[in-house]
Amino acid sequence: MDHARFAECLSDHSAMARAALLDWLPRGDPDRHLYGPMRSFIEASGKGLRPALVLATCRAFGGDPQDALISAAALELLHNAFLVHDDIEDESEFRRGQPCMHTTLGVPLAVNVGDAMQTMALRLVRRNAERLPPAVAVRVLDEFDHMLVQSIEGQAMELGWIRDNDMAVSPQDYLRMTLKKTCWYSFIHPCRIGAVIARPQGCDLDAFNAFGFYLGAAFQIQDDVLNLVGDQDKYGKEIGGDLYEGKRTLMLARLFHHADPGERQTLSRFLATRRQERDAHSVAWVMQRLDHYACIDYARKAAGELIGAARIAFDIAYAGASGEDKDFIGYLIDYVVARNS
Amino acid sequence: MDHARFAECLSDHSAMARAALLDWLPRGDPDRHLYGPMRSFIEASGKGLRPALVLATCRAFGGDPQDALISAAALELLHNAFLVHDDIEDESEFRRGQPCMHTTLGVPLAVNVGDAMQTMALRLVRRNAERLPPAVAVRVLDEFDHMLVQSIEGQAMELGWIRDNDMAVSPQDYLRMTLKKTCWYSFIHPCRIGAVIARPQGCDLDAFNAFGFYLGAAFQIQDDVLNLVGDQDKYGKEIGGDLYEGKRTLMLARLFHHADPGERQTLSRFLATRRQERDAHSVAWVMQRLDHYACIDYARKAAGELIGAARIAFDIAYAGASGEDKDFIGYLIDYVVARNS
Repeated sequence: MDHARFAECLSDHSAMARAALLDWLPRGDPDRHLYGPMRSFIEASGKGLRPALVLATCRAFGGDPQDALISAAALELLHNAFLVHDDIEDESEFRRGQPCMHTTLGVPLAVNVGDAMQTMALRLVRRNAERLPPAVAVRVLDEFDHMLVQSIEGQAMELGWIRDNDMAVSPQDYLRMTLKKTCWYSFIHPCRIGAVIARPQGCDLDAFNAFGFYLGAAFQIQDDVLNLVGDQDKYGKEIGGDLYEGKRTLMLARLFHHADPGERQTLSRFLATRRQERDAHSVAWVMQRLDHYACIDYARKAAGELIGAARIAFDIAYAGASGEDKDFIGYLIDYVVARNS
Repeated sequence: MDHARFAECLSDHSAMARAALLDWLPRGDPDRHLYGPMRSFIEASGKGLRPALVLATCRAFGGDPQDALISAAALELLHNAFLVHDDIEDESEFRRGQPCMHTTLGVPLAVNVGDAMQTMALRLVRRNAERLPPAVAVRVLDEFDHMLVQSIEGQAMELGWIRDNDMAVSPQDYLRMTLKKTCWYSFIHPCRIGAVIARPQGCDLDAFNAFGFYLGAAFQIQDDVLNLVGDQDKYGKEIGGDLYEGKRTLMLARLFHHADPGERQTLSRFLATRRQERDAHSVAWVMQRLDHYACIDYARKAAGELIGAARIAFDIAYAGASGEDKDFIGYLIDYVVARNS
């Protein structure tokens, strides 16, 4: 599979899920303060990796993607629910090149829109009962339940570190947080859900856990790297935003470990400063220290090793799969670290 | 039933639900930033009206309250989820005589704890499948789904009015918002859920809609009145807080209607001011205008009339019920407007 075909598959799968989602989402009152902003946010949504992974996995294991469409659409909605609340929690300013929802609609209404998206995602996934065998529909709900709790626990870890200005976060802590915050809902469960819908019996779902963890961790590290060194026009978020937000990335975990006492003190003061009061000069100093200790190279190398592990885990997890959709997921593994947006 | 016995029944029902909830809630990591604050918030929780209404209705219709315990506990958890997000959305400062969660834990983590409570409430209510007939368990989930969406839509209406500084809100608008924001989840669905668990077939659930609307609207109006004229020690929230928050109450809807052009202008300026910048002098002026146009008397009278309607609707909805639990709910009707906290 070449890149053009990969991009086409990604766009086809994700357009299918988004169309189903927009078709299902309520219209009407309260429109201006609830369903309108919800639809606009979905309409502007990103690449659709997660629903593509659900649909491709389902088809790779011989399933009918129509059977997985509700799950794919619900997952995309849940992802958007997370983004709306994450942006509030991180005090982010930009998303997809636009001001975040809470900056245009205000925090109170944005919290409420996020709640509505989460609720609507679960309402949608319950509609699987109309199409799938009852045991499979319940199973998919269990998968959603697990991904929600894991993601929220991961978010609590990350936000707790920022709140406590924790400078003892190690690479291992970072990976455990990333497993919870990112891997379960973005990679592991999409694969598991696609597979269980295609083959309610004959699939070892836990084989996707290793694959999704390696791939998801590489994805998150690459996301963190892009946040530092990416091209804002392509990336859609502010460059260096994670530093302004005090996020504990793999790069920062390495810097915590290597920094001398004086640097630790300066870094601690920087991280304890309120986001609005951090200045470009201090951010540049942190960037320079990250560079000095080769933290970005370290992160890129870690992402590369995780991608290697993901390739091996892919061969195991997708041994029973075949066809172009399997190739699509295989290509995705390389894309995750090659992407620039 | 006298007040002492009513208070005892309320406390018994609510203690039973709270104990079941605390027993079920996760302990452990992430403790300090997620499950710890969640448990503390539940432990400090209020009167437990909603779980009591579920359990009492179930028993009044001849059901086993043990069958309704999961639903009662899940409803109490969902109520607490709403409170955590509501307090953020309203920029409230006190709850139950304590600083709100977002003021102690910070907005980011409090948004996340609220998300976790909502997720956990739905996880808990799904456990009904282990005890109730499958069709009843699904039915209860449908009830939760409806209450969530209605409550969020009501919240969007209320927050939207504040955001737009809407001064065209009429008593009818207020009642429609209250039906959505308060009545469904606090009164209508608790009764419906208790009844459907007791009598999966022989109950007209829609008869509870009128009862719960009248009772819930009276409850909310009384809550708004207490917010203006109550005793802070008993009420647990700051007196006049709704005015600082710019909430559109029935009293304010009447003032919008009666105020002369000069008063409307002053009121509009007051309501357009950011919460932190509203001063006690302006709040006193609004109080004085509310008094001048007898807005509090008007609201008390409306609550009284709604209570009259609730009594009639109660006789219809609970015609097939009997015993002390029915008396408890009958007493609750009067308590709703007689309470001072």
